[in-house]
Amino acid sequence: MEKTWLIIGMIAGGISVGAALLLYFWVMRQDDGNDRTREVAGWIREGAASYLRRLYLALTMVSIVMGFIIAIVFSFDLAQIGNGGVDIEPLNGLTMALAFVAGAVCSALAGYMGMAVAVQANVRSAIAVRDSLNKGFRVAFFAGSVMGLAMVGLAVLGMCAIYLLTGNPEVVLGFSFGASALALLAKAGGGIYTKTADIAADLVGKVEVGIPEDDPRNPAVVADNVGDNVGDVAGMGADIFDSYVASTVAAMLLGAAMIGPQSVKYTVFPLILCTLGIFASLIGIQFVRVGKNGKPGTALNFGTIFTCVLFGAMVVVLVLVGRYDSAVLWSTLVGLLAGVVVGFTTEYFTSEDFKPVLETARVSGSGAAINIITGFSYGLLSILPAIVGIVVATLVSYYIAESSSVVTGIYGIGISAVGMLSVSGMIVSADAYGPIVDNARGIAEMAGLEHEVIERADVLDSAGNTAKAITKGFSISAAALTVLALFAAYAEVIEARGIEIEISLRNPLVVAGVFLGAVTPPIFSALTMLSVTEGAFDMIEEIRRQFRERPGILAGTELPDYNTCVDLAARGALSSLVLPAFLAVGLPLLVGFVLGPDALGGFLGGAIFTGVIFALLMANAGGLWDNAKKFIETGQYGGVGSEAHKAGVVGDTVGDPFKDTAGPSLNTLITVMSLVASLFAPVIAAFHFF
Amino acid sequence: MEKTWLIIGMIAGGISVGAALLLYFWVMRQDDGNDRTREVAGWIREGAASYLRRLYLALTMVSIVMGFIIAIVFSFDLAQIGNGGVDIEPLNGLTMALAFVAGAVCSALAGYMGMAVAVQANVRSAIAVRDSLNKGFRVAFFAGSVMGLAMVGLAVLGMCAIYLLTGNPEVVLGFSFGASALALLAKAGGGIYTKTADIAADLVGKVEVGIPEDDPRNPAVVADNVGDNVGDVAGMGADIFDSYVASTVAAMLLGAAMIGPQSVKYTVFPLILCTLGIFASLIGIQFVRVGKNGKPGTALNFGTIFTCVLFGAMVVVLVLVGRYDSAVLWSTLVGLLAGVVVGFTTEYFTSEDFKPVLETARVSGSGAAINIITGFSYGLLSILPAIVGIVVATLVSYYIAESSSVVTGIYGIGISAVGMLSVSGMIVSADAYGPIVDNARGIAEMAGLEHEVIERADVLDSAGNTAKAITKGFSISAAALTVLALFAAYAEVIEARGIEIEISLRNPLVVAGVFLGAVTPPIFSALTMLSVTEGAFDMIEEIRRQFRERPGILAGTELPDYNTCVDLAARGALSSLVLPAFLAVGLPLLVGFVLGPDALGGFLGGAIFTGVIFALLMANAGGLWDNAKKFIETGQYGGVGSEAHKAGVVGDTVGDPFKDTAGPSLNTLITVMSLVASLFAPVIAAFHFF
Repeated sequence: MEKTWLIIGMIAGGISVGAALLLYFWVMRQDDGNDRTREVAGWIREGAASYLRRLYLALTMVSIVMGFIIAIVFSFDLAQIGNGGVDIEPLNGLTMALAFVAGAVCSALAGYMGMAVAVQANVRSAIAVRDSLNKGFRVAFFAGSVMGLAMVGLAVLGMCAIYLLTGNPEVVLGFSFGASALALLAKAGGGIYTKTADIAADLVGKVEVGIPEDDPRNPAVVADNVGDNVGDVAGMGADIFDSYVASTVAAMLLGAAMIGPQSVKYTVFPLILCTLGIFASLIGIQFVRVGKNGKPGTALNFGTIFTCVLFGAMVVVLVLVGRYDSAVLWSTLVGLLAGVVVGFTTEYFTSEDFKPVLETARVSGSGAAINIITGFSYGLLSILPAIVGIVVATLVSYYIAESSSVVTGIYGIGISAVGMLSVSGMIVSADAYGPIVDNARGIAEMAGLEHEVIERADVLDSAGNTAKAITKGFSISAAALTVLALFAAYAEVIEARGIEIEISLRNPLVVAGVFLGAVTPPIFSALTMLSVTEGAFDMIEEIRRQFRERPGILAGTELPDYNTCVDLAARGALSSLVLPAFLAVGLPLLVGFVLGPDALGGFLGGAIFTGVIFALLMANAGGLWDNAKKFIETGQYGGVGSEAHKAGVVGDTVGDPFKDTAGPSLNTLITVMSLVASLFAPVIAAFHFF
Repeated sequence: MEKTWLIIGMIAGGISVGAALLLYFWVMRQDDGNDRTREVAGWIREGAASYLRRLYLALTMVSIVMGFIIAIVFSFDLAQIGNGGVDIEPLNGLTMALAFVAGAVCSALAGYMGMAVAVQANVRSAIAVRDSLNKGFRVAFFAGSVMGLAMVGLAVLGMCAIYLLTGNPEVVLGFSFGASALALLAKAGGGIYTKTADIAADLVGKVEVGIPEDDPRNPAVVADNVGDNVGDVAGMGADIFDSYVASTVAAMLLGAAMIGPQSVKYTVFPLILCTLGIFASLIGIQFVRVGKNGKPGTALNFGTIFTCVLFGAMVVVLVLVGRYDSAVLWSTLVGLLAGVVVGFTTEYFTSEDFKPVLETARVSGSGAAINIITGFSYGLLSILPAIVGIVVATLVSYYIAESSSVVTGIYGIGISAVGMLSVSGMIVSADAYGPIVDNARGIAEMAGLEHEVIERADVLDSAGNTAKAITKGFSISAAALTVLALFAAYAEVIEARGIEIEISLRNPLVVAGVFLGAVTPPIFSALTMLSVTEGAFDMIEEIRRQFRERPGILAGTELPDYNTCVDLAARGALSSLVLPAFLAVGLPLLVGFVLGPDALGGFLGGAIFTGVIFALLMANAGGLWDNAKKFIETGQYGGVGSEAHKAGVVGDTVGDPFKDTAGPSLNTLITVMSLVASLFAPVIAAFHFF
């Protein structure tokens, strides 16, 4: 029976990838306008391609090195070291290395498909929106779906195939680690790239020279638009891909750790949830459309909620027909609900309909400092409801599952994370829509399309921002549940080797581990943000140089040199990833080998606690500042050009690396650290200093 | 023998208080200048008195209510509930309540003495500096010593007396809780007060109207100078008083928890360390003087290091003569060393001699946003060395003590915290010097003293800032070690009742506790900072109103209404303490009674981890922004009035509530929470829901 499900999973994955390809060709058949629009889109496409070439080159090297290390390390017969009777086949170095590479390749492939369609869909959406809002919306949303469907399809295909071949969830862990290692580089690199270009373009363009956003005279305008793609499409896709796979594998490991004949059944169950999620997303995507006077934002939210409900119904049937314990149903639903609730509290702190944004806008008249303090303070407050949501989801799913006679409590936590992430196909589709319409708007402006078209593109764009706020809350809370499950899995993997692990805060080594772990997310944030300001500083010099040396650029008689800016951003972003990558992979290993597995458990715990807190703070404060500025721009408190607006712009600029560079990378950071720990747990359990 | 030591301790405490009184009268005998200087000083004195009246009224009510609660709760015969054989006498409700009130009164008294002398010494230092730098320095430093000596004297007197009378360290815990409850209100209230006044005075005075700092035409100038006293003198004194007592009582509890005949000896040992620290401070203070061409900053640092060395030598003799285990000597020295090291790394991140400040100043030319991102990022990085220092001190003192056959490992951690804080008499003296000379400078400006005098006062002032940076790092790391010891003591108190406690991160209730605890410091920071901006907003309106309605003020023909601003700041600060106080006292109890003692342990752990991290971030980022602005003001990157300077001012203003309101209150917050938990641990162990 479990084999059948695995095969169904592979078929579903195949269908999902196939659907993504069909949508891709559909998008490519759309009109891409005249020579001018094609030219502008071409610049962005080339810029994106040049970044991706660099990124994938770096990733290939990293994968090869890591693959070798994994192959060698796991060739030692670790399963023999104190194996504690749990039925896990010995690991094979080559198999693990291949799984790792497969994970990296699948993640890269999904990101590549998403980017490939995004840089074609932007111009086509801009042209389509000339005909009607709905047409422009459809092009952008279906292009976003390419990414969403490719991602879940490749993930499920990969996981099912590996488990079918090896029957060992620890090999799937290798796959997950590959996906996450790639995600970390793609996400952090993309985040640095996009904000370097954005800040530099704004500071020189808007502030110093006084030309509007997306003006083709700005040498950094192409880099800025490329950044939207590499940061928001490829980066965010890789981020959710990584949580998606990691949550599934964590639940599988926790299932495998259960003793009894039911163990295999519950090991496969997370994969079945993913499979159902694919079907739900495929159907849900069909129902997303904007009527004559409909709003794109409503359409996206409707699609998300419809998909969640459909998925919930499918799980009910599955549990009844497949005779699963009802606890797993409740855990799934609790996770799903928590994701939605956290998404909406994010909305409270970042939407201009509520007090935080309004209050921040109101005090902006007293200057930038007051705007920053107020926004930062609300960002701190925004942590509370999300954490309460995560805590409640954890406790409820734990106690429901613990009280069942079949599954363990921690398995329930794992399943609630999977439940939350099963509908990722739809979530990613709605999210990838955002940068595409953002780009469409840019192209419309740069190519000099009609004013009306730009206005319609604006409507599409603002819907993208709403969707983005909700999916961001969703992805942070999903990552939190995922890492909690991974944390539990880490302990299980150690114990499966017959080694006792006690992560007690009364043990000073554990406390030391927690402190060191807790410091990692702030340090990681600092490093990525400093990369942004350093990169922006260089690019500002370059833009000023171009304006100074070639006056024809500002006069509009001469094209600026877009490529230098594109290259500058790409080089800066990738070269500054070395230290953050070490933090993510090297530090857990260092702590584990020196201070031992208990301290490493504390380290993971510490990283999770502050990682989630800083991710929420940075994402929400950033969103809040952005919308406070936008609110002032609607004419409130003096509108554009007023003192309040100037303060709002400062807040928005501070928020940029908060919400698009540091904040969202933290999810991936803590996932990677948890995966590294779980993967190397057997080795660490065998050799450590203290 | 132990009794003798307790009596010696009481005598030393008495001597210290006596010395403080002598210095007070010496300061009062100094010249307070002419009518004009007396008038200006009088405004500040009255403003401070009016704040203190309100504060002490509020504190009296809080003390009475809390005292009643404690008296009632501890009247139940809790010692009977599952007492697990450890020799602790049953607690008495009335005794506990009296100890609590005594702690609050001693802390208030020390703060009151410090304030009383500070508001007299400011004008006298301004007059004395006319004669010579050294004379001005002596007045200010000896005035600071009044606070330092009164504080350690009253603390040691109180603790020795209580332990002598009851023989039970848990009653001393009540004393400590009283001191800390008061410290929290004094520190957070003072922090809100001082920054409300400071920001409002600067934004309207310097930015809008363009009058200099400390100009008597500014209606908020008195409130601003009062704020320096209530925030930096009374608040900071209360803060260190609270760590000082808490670390001692934590070590006493850990000593009492040890089994064997040596237990009493090591329970009294922390009090002996405090006693020696008093003598070392009394001697060290005599050696602080500025030569003809000497620098005040060097004099302060020399005094601190001299005191530390002297104290270290005393402890060596004590351990040899008193036949204590050598482990406690090493723990003391490790703590002392860690405090110094953390102090100096703070210096790296906040001094204009090193990269962080220079880099932040350099990028300021690109605007306020880049200044904020850069400064914030370096603030995040600054967490790392301090945490490493704390972790190393914890592990080293733990393992040294654990390897001894006499004391336990956690007792070693407790002693290292006491070691660090024993020299508080000297530390507080150097620290309280800062606001006094800051005020002296203000009075010189307001009273129109000669330019040369103001310049000399500036020299004194900048030395105060250096001392402040080091003592801030010191106080945060001391608080961290203290709360770690209290955390261990909490578990011991529970186990002393024969109830098993396991604070394992594999228990979801503990994880829930950690998450909730970890959220508390950010929420607390947000609440206090929002109080500052709200208060500043109101005061800005008031200042604008005065300028608008009475044009004579700006013309200099009419005195502004200082009192309204003073009252506004005081009312705002005290009324906004309700929610933060609930977080500190109510939340731990809520978590304990609902989720149980294990989860409360997790809660404390979480609060400690993020509390220390946010305290370091906020203190250091704030100091960094302040000095980056000052560096630009020396003429770098365009100097005063340039774009870089404007950006620097924004950074400095953002940093104000970071470093003087939220950051330093976090120490006290986590101490109070740890004390509440330890104090109510027996009750919680007896009654909890989960």
